[in-house]
Amino acid sequence: MLLNHEYYMQIALTEAKEAFEKDEIPIGALIVANDRIIAKTHNLTESLNDVTAHAEMQAITAAAHAIGGKYLKNCTMYLTVEPCQMCAGALYWSQISKIVIGAQDNKRGFTTMGGKLHPKTEIIYGVLEKECSALMLTFFQNKR
Amino acid sequence: MLLNHEYYMQIALTEAKEAFEKDEIPIGALIVANDRIIAKTHNLTESLNDVTAHAEMQAITAAAHAIGGKYLKNCTMYLTVEPCQMCAGALYWSQISKIVIGAQDNKRGFTTMGGKLHPKTEIIYGVLEKECSALMLTFFQNKR
Repeated sequence: MLLNHEYYMQIALTEAKEAFEKDEIPIGALIVANDRIIAKTHNLTESLNDVTAHAEMQAITAAAHAIGGKYLKNCTMYLTVEPCQMCAGALYWSQISKIVIGAQDNKRGFTTMGGKLHPKTEIIYGVLEKECSALMLTFFQNKR
Repeated sequence: MLLNHEYYMQIALTEAKEAFEKDEIPIGALIVANDRIIAKTHNLTESLNDVTAHAEMQAITAAAHAIGGKYLKNCTMYLTVEPCQMCAGALYWSQISKIVIGAQDNKRGFTTMGGKLHPKTEIIYGVLEKECSALMLTFFQNKR
């Protein structure tokens, strides 16, 4: 069975919901290699008191450990929200093959703030966009 | 005694030399708060097999633990080489007060690759520039 982008994004979204439950900005990430999930993370900046603890950063570290190498070639990241410049920079260094994104982040996303992905990295937008975006919206509305 | 930028950069440079000895790209970082060193790190991407293990990233995490909070207000980072976009992004989130840089990185530095520091962050270039730059040059010359 060939698993599809929506299938994996749904799992990333479940991670994002775990972040939401912990009162963390609800972003989830997944890294898949050869149809196997090798990293599954969510944002933990508040819980860990660490601005670097974004879902993407944890996923990159976990995937590198799983693979036994620091380059994430032939890997796909599923990410509920567009990466910030820090995470885009980390993804640049990882040379990851593909990034599938749910919602865009017009305020803090790397396409707004500046920064580049690796030229080898393919990027796909808009998978389960409505669900990923709605979770963020609910989170920030509750904060007001 | 009021310690000066050269004093702290010299310690960051000692960290960079430790990286060099481990065959890591020789970059060192230091975070200082109230004239006290709260983080002292060097690049470990090869040793840890992790593209996120730049000196700056480790220093930000260590300093946050030392402070007990994720924002590095009233902190100064001493950094032997200009940060990349990932590290500039992490420094953005940390809202660090000041960054003192040794050598510029015209190839992979954030001013070339894109990305922004926080508007509250002051940046100073050129402290022990010659020494910081020479260490990098020697490293890459040995690689050829």
